[in-house]
Amino acid sequence: MVNDIRAVAWTDDGLRLIDQTVLPGRFEHLHVRDTGTLVDAIRRLAVRGAPALGVAGAFGVAIAMIEAERQGWTAGERDAAIDRIRSARPTAVNLAAGVDRVLPFVPEGVDAVVAEARKLLDEDVRNNQSIGRGGADWILARTGKRPLRVLTHCNAGALATAGWGTAFGVIRELAQRDAVELVYADETRPLLQGSRLTAWELEQAGIPYLVQADGAAASTILRGLVDVAVIGADRIAANGDVANKIGSVGVALACADAGIPFVVAAPWSTVDLNTPSGEEIPIEERPGDEVLTWEGLTVAPPGARGFNPAFDVIPARLVAALATETGILEIAKGETPLPS
Amino acid sequence: MVNDIRAVAWTDDGLRLIDQTVLPGRFEHLHVRDTGTLVDAIRRLAVRGAPALGVAGAFGVAIAMIEAERQGWTAGERDAAIDRIRSARPTAVNLAAGVDRVLPFVPEGVDAVVAEARKLLDEDVRNNQSIGRGGADWILARTGKRPLRVLTHCNAGALATAGWGTAFGVIRELAQRDAVELVYADETRPLLQGSRLTAWELEQAGIPYLVQADGAAASTILRGLVDVAVIGADRIAANGDVANKIGSVGVALACADAGIPFVVAAPWSTVDLNTPSGEEIPIEERPGDEVLTWEGLTVAPPGARGFNPAFDVIPARLVAALATETGILEIAKGETPLPS
Repeated sequence: MVNDIRAVAWTDDGLRLIDQTVLPGRFEHLHVRDTGTLVDAIRRLAVRGAPALGVAGAFGVAIAMIEAERQGWTAGERDAAIDRIRSARPTAVNLAAGVDRVLPFVPEGVDAVVAEARKLLDEDVRNNQSIGRGGADWILARTGKRPLRVLTHCNAGALATAGWGTAFGVIRELAQRDAVELVYADETRPLLQGSRLTAWELEQAGIPYLVQADGAAASTILRGLVDVAVIGADRIAANGDVANKIGSVGVALACADAGIPFVVAAPWSTVDLNTPSGEEIPIEERPGDEVLTWEGLTVAPPGARGFNPAFDVIPARLVAALATETGILEIAKGETPLPS
Repeated sequence: MVNDIRAVAWTDDGLRLIDQTVLPGRFEHLHVRDTGTLVDAIRRLAVRGAPALGVAGAFGVAIAMIEAERQGWTAGERDAAIDRIRSARPTAVNLAAGVDRVLPFVPEGVDAVVAEARKLLDEDVRNNQSIGRGGADWILARTGKRPLRVLTHCNAGALATAGWGTAFGVIRELAQRDAVELVYADETRPLLQGSRLTAWELEQAGIPYLVQADGAAASTILRGLVDVAVIGADRIAANGDVANKIGSVGVALACADAGIPFVVAAPWSTVDLNTPSGEEIPIEERPGDEVLTWEGLTVAPPGARGFNPAFDVIPARLVAALATETGILEIAKGETPLPS
């Protein structure tokens, strides 16, 4: 049992990440002392999840400063390294925002940058707890039911954040209130963040769960086995469209058809008011081999090519509620993140 | 390149099956000389697909008769063996129907049973070619477009039938008419019939395709990348509800949302007029380990349990067209298999 699930932490030895590529088989830390290692860790999804990427990006600036000092880089070389971190993955707005948050402190030195990154980390945990409380309140009021059967997709837990989790934070809060009967965790192909990471966190938290193939989600919902679906978000557009892990919009369509609420839980930093709608959100396309192989085993015939968009866009009309630390927006009813 | 894709064949040596569990890595035949081996092959999905199961069930009766003779079984023991074949899997109506089709010939001996099973096999191929022509005509008329981008789920190809395929037969026919731009093949977890079998058949047929995670299907459709989805069926209820591989109803919901046709291609033998609606179709639940493991590798944490329904039910309202060898029924418009 691992009590200290801190996906991203700053230590005397630099940035420490839980290596999420080897879970649940092994629980190992990755120690990051240079920007190349960090960019690689982000691209390989050793660290992942929009809020966790934000915190990793913020500490990454400190890593770049230390490396610049060590290597005798010019300021331009250092800034180029920071920019490589900032753009290591395109969809989640939090990564760039985390970097940008600490940039004003660069002239004050590494300690000031680390201090600001730590503030971001602490805020994220507090925000997640707040999201969890607000989300749980809304869900219990809306469904009028307990205990609940909850479906989630991908991992929006402690591993995806600075701690506690967003969608998983809502589930934790519901569980603390004795209001969770069962969680259906979609396995989340191709990289299995559901069966590898969410199942692992559910196991650590002692919450009852079943892992199912992504293709089963719509049917489980239509059969009346689910009361509410809760997911995280990688970017939320000004009109309320939500980008999240591929497979999310299928869950949202099934919820709409079954008349159960589809809830998005995310910190306000995931909202990008500069992106008018989902159409403008860049969707990362990852290597096709992630779909064609399984733990190194090729499952498709020679010659096959994979199509591997990492995210999809859930239209605002399908999002019953967006839970952030600033409150609940009932998006499908026309409430949008844009200040009116 | 394998030109002779006959999933089920009768040889001098008994029943010969393509072992679909080892494709696409290996192309191997399984020689079946006793009912235990056949029941095991059906349960392991070495032979699978509703129409192929029907033909395998029909030849299985001959296998049981030969085994009964060899082992000195009573007629009761032989009939019990036949019944084990008949009920080896519960969802597809074709397996039981294939057995029932040849039962009247049992008193006439093995040759008569084999002859009737061969007739069923030949009919299935002819029916599939007819389904392909009718389905292609309807799709081209309805979409008014060519070449088409087609999405399919699971495998309803030569491997799932006596030959040619049902949903895949429609794709073959469209390809022969130079009307296929690209096929999106859902990988179809947990057993990957899409990436292992459909991709292999597409490769053999030289039709351009991409393999995608099942979770990507809804998004690919909503992004406007697909003109039509075509799938097979394991059972069709009298009201037009369709049972097919888990993940199918998610594809159907996305097609409805995007306004593109969702087409079911199946022989009339898949229609079960004794089943009033999808609610009465028994849904096989397979071992949870199929979701939690891959080729012996466990991907979920110790303690995890899998939920593994093998099929889902597509409500009639989402089925634009059902293509059988007797013609097209526009199910969503209220045409049902029930004679009016």
